[in-house]
Amino acid sequence: MPHPKVEPLRINYKTLEEFQKFSEYGLPELSMLEDLQSNIIENNSNSPFYGIYQDDQLIARISLYRVDAKYDVYFSPAQDYYECWKLEVLPQYRNQGLGSALVSYAKKLGLPIKTNARRRSDPFWRQMGFQPVRYNPVRDRGESPYVWLPPGVQLKD
Amino acid sequence: MPHPKVEPLRINYKTLEEFQKFSEYGLPELSMLEDLQSNIIENNSNSPFYGIYQDDQLIARISLYRVDAKYDVYFSPAQDYYECWKLEVLPQYRNQGLGSALVSYAKKLGLPIKTNARRRSDPFWRQMGFQPVRYNPVRDRGESPYVWLPPGVQLKD
Repeated sequence: MPHPKVEPLRINYKTLEEFQKFSEYGLPELSMLEDLQSNIIENNSNSPFYGIYQDDQLIARISLYRVDAKYDVYFSPAQDYYECWKLEVLPQYRNQGLGSALVSYAKKLGLPIKTNARRRSDPFWRQMGFQPVRYNPVRDRGESPYVWLPPGVQLKD
Repeated sequence: MPHPKVEPLRINYKTLEEFQKFSEYGLPELSMLEDLQSNIIENNSNSPFYGIYQDDQLIARISLYRVDAKYDVYFSPAQDYYECWKLEVLPQYRNQGLGSALVSYAKKLGLPIKTNARRRSDPFWRQMGFQPVRYNPVRDRGESPYVWLPPGVQLKD
């Protein structure tokens, strides 16, 4: 897949069914399902997820949650940023650049990005232009935060 | 291993070398190593980790980070609690009750516990007496928080 198309995912029953294929499936997904079932959110509402489809199947996804500047403890000046979670490519579609395509898409949104580099994924994040923060136990609480800084943005420390 | 012995882990070069066998190894571990190397912390300092040894090798670990009551957003009344991360049993020692032994140890410390039920581990946490919180996107930010409540403690919501 030379130029995978990344698209925002709408919250509907099809999307939530596709999410079940991913190993990270928990309270956030269940909560979306319940909100949809009880009409708290409308069908095809916006979600914080973006994904790549192949043959009408969701094969890779990323969650980009916009954190308000008032909660920013990472960047200087303090500003809105994206917290990136649940970057996951289904096993049979790995090593084709889909994860990179999702992260490149996120960077084009123009805000700083913070992620938690789990399970020894540091080399991937470095390759994508991310850098580790200086670990602060009270703030970072066991995470391995890696950040991407757009021009003009610095780390807070 | 019918009665695995759980013990607090001290921060020293041997412990930090053993940590490298675990799939969750990131900035918190690297930061401990750097602090040890630069004498910011002493050899054999306390760590937030507890573990199980077999034949002098660390085969399972858990991190229990004590969060101060002033940061508590989960429990009522607000109080100190343990945030549980990095529960991990090395692959060849799984399905022998070592994970349960670590969590049982944590519960005996007497404070509420909060964890993030990752990778579809919900059934394990339920079996250990944990319950899901009501998902709050701003507070929980993509996590699947499960909590264990000692007698007299309730969920905040």
